[in-house]
Amino acid sequence: MKKNKKDSKEQSKKKEVNYPNIAVLGGGSWATALVKILSENLDSLHWYMRSESAADHIRRYGNNPNYISAAELDPGKLQLTNDINSAVAACDWLILAIPSAFLVQELEKLQIPLKDKVLFSAVKGIVPESGQIVGEHLHEHFDIPYENIGVIAGPCHAEEVALERLSYLTLACADTDKAEIMSDCLQCDYINTAVSKDIIGTEYAAMLKNIYALAAGIAHGLGYGDNYQAVLMSNAIREMKRYVKRRYNIDRNINHSAYLGDLLVTGYSTFSRNRMFGNMIGKGYTVKSAMMEMNMVAEGYYATRSAYEIKKSFTKKVKTPIIDAVYGILYEKKNPRKEFAQLSEKMV
Amino acid sequence: MKKNKKDSKEQSKKKEVNYPNIAVLGGGSWATALVKILSENLDSLHWYMRSESAADHIRRYGNNPNYISAAELDPGKLQLTNDINSAVAACDWLILAIPSAFLVQELEKLQIPLKDKVLFSAVKGIVPESGQIVGEHLHEHFDIPYENIGVIAGPCHAEEVALERLSYLTLACADTDKAEIMSDCLQCDYINTAVSKDIIGTEYAAMLKNIYALAAGIAHGLGYGDNYQAVLMSNAIREMKRYVKRRYNIDRNINHSAYLGDLLVTGYSTFSRNRMFGNMIGKGYTVKSAMMEMNMVAEGYYATRSAYEIKKSFTKKVKTPIIDAVYGILYEKKNPRKEFAQLSEKMV
Repeated sequence: MKKNKKDSKEQSKKKEVNYPNIAVLGGGSWATALVKILSENLDSLHWYMRSESAADHIRRYGNNPNYISAAELDPGKLQLTNDINSAVAACDWLILAIPSAFLVQELEKLQIPLKDKVLFSAVKGIVPESGQIVGEHLHEHFDIPYENIGVIAGPCHAEEVALERLSYLTLACADTDKAEIMSDCLQCDYINTAVSKDIIGTEYAAMLKNIYALAAGIAHGLGYGDNYQAVLMSNAIREMKRYVKRRYNIDRNINHSAYLGDLLVTGYSTFSRNRMFGNMIGKGYTVKSAMMEMNMVAEGYYATRSAYEIKKSFTKKVKTPIIDAVYGILYEKKNPRKEFAQLSEKMV
Repeated sequence: MKKNKKDSKEQSKKKEVNYPNIAVLGGGSWATALVKILSENLDSLHWYMRSESAADHIRRYGNNPNYISAAELDPGKLQLTNDINSAVAACDWLILAIPSAFLVQELEKLQIPLKDKVLFSAVKGIVPESGQIVGEHLHEHFDIPYENIGVIAGPCHAEEVALERLSYLTLACADTDKAEIMSDCLQCDYINTAVSKDIIGTEYAAMLKNIYALAAGIAHGLGYGDNYQAVLMSNAIREMKRYVKRRYNIDRNINHSAYLGDLLVTGYSTFSRNRMFGNMIGKGYTVKSAMMEMNMVAEGYYATRSAYEIKKSFTKKVKTPIIDAVYGILYEKKNPRKEFAQLSEKMV
């Protein structure tokens, strides 16, 4: 992972940089945060969201009424549309910031081929329909070569971007020139960036961390405390390292921000939906009632099934006691208390 | 690091195990927690504390009036004394649980040689007078061979032991047989144990984590958020790994609970004294006024100076931007805002 720094000379030439034409697809909090960041550097960008009324509000008042509404946006720079095809047609580079649960149905609307576009995924999680991470899904279903697929990785709560609190993003792409370009687009006063080639590892880490945040929630719901949480996270990062290594074995330091940092910001966040969902499971809610109560599905729910099924396809086995425990609880109706008691004996 | 598990057969023989005679030295919260844990397995143990009135209260009511008073103790098992020599004379194994700032003055009271005793340190931090970790200090100043020196490492807040919330301890000793014995003494329903040979690494990690918790406090005081905290911790564990490797280069997984877990439980605790101290520094208090306000000195304050000075003695240099920044702020009156702005550019 390489820190990406413009020197001051480059900074002063900022206006001369030829930024690509970028469309952000999605109207949620992470999409809104990325639009805010990109607007710091770019004079113009396209932004697709389904809700015409939200788009209207942004045009009129300069903030998203539904997500991180404290984030001030410059409507003068934004080509807002609720037609995904017009945004995609206008741009060579696309940032996908659609929740993974809706990604397939949104991409089905496309009448324009994606294969010559550069796509960066800011989706955190697995595509439920294919059980794949977004990079793999795009590569396989849309014929996009890996050199044109990138990932925007945290650790980054969108809410803190709204407050312009210093945050770090990692841009991963097999073609590091493209990662550098996206890095230039995103780097600003409150965003530091790094580039990486590890698109597969970064995406899997982002997916797995949701399972570990869910596990942290279950533990909390069951009454385990901070000592246990620290042990759980320390076991989680070792499990993540083993898993990602089996999936894609390149030289990586799992303790870099894009992996460990992303795990920590989610696993220690009390606002995380995965943690909330897990907490309800730990407190005795059934999966169904927890989903109904939350009125949504936590990413970690899908991630657990996918991670579990994908690991069964590994030629060499990998020990994943945390994923196994969460899978047993969510998909095999096992008793959370018993599963975590057994898990606790496996941790060290 | 090896998980230490009694099998059920051994469990059932519990009463037959010949536990050593153990004295716990110290009357604070961690000492009290260890006494509670040891009382689960041992029928009798010696406990030295300075305060006669606290000892009296424990004898009468079965709880420590000053620290983690929710922890129920069994006075029938406890040989309480305020004479350190009588406790040390009665026992072959000693557990040091005296705050490092008072360790030297307490040990000066001893009229009994320590060199044939087995000493386990539960002290978290550096001995201010020698600038050494406790193991090194005991080895050098009391002629105790490293085979007789052990460490009891967390992650473990004493408060959660009082509540019997499942926690994990690592017992480190060059002589792993002794680590195993101490592990048998401590393992119980709410304590899982592991053994390790890495006494130096474990103690340095426990010392360094206080600096990183202090840094987390400064960052919070300066207004940085959760995204930054995750990046800081992810940089801290890499810095810790480099530092400890330079100090004592053996094969270790820095992501084990005794290192990363201990860093996380402290770095994410909002009750940590190091974090509180750092927070005040970040908010603009001078070092002196923060100390006066807190009415105590945070371990991380000493640890910062020692870690900084010790690393200067390394033959090969090691990059420690976080320690350097905290040192500059605490000991060279540098501006926290500027130091952290520079530090932020070095992190990735």
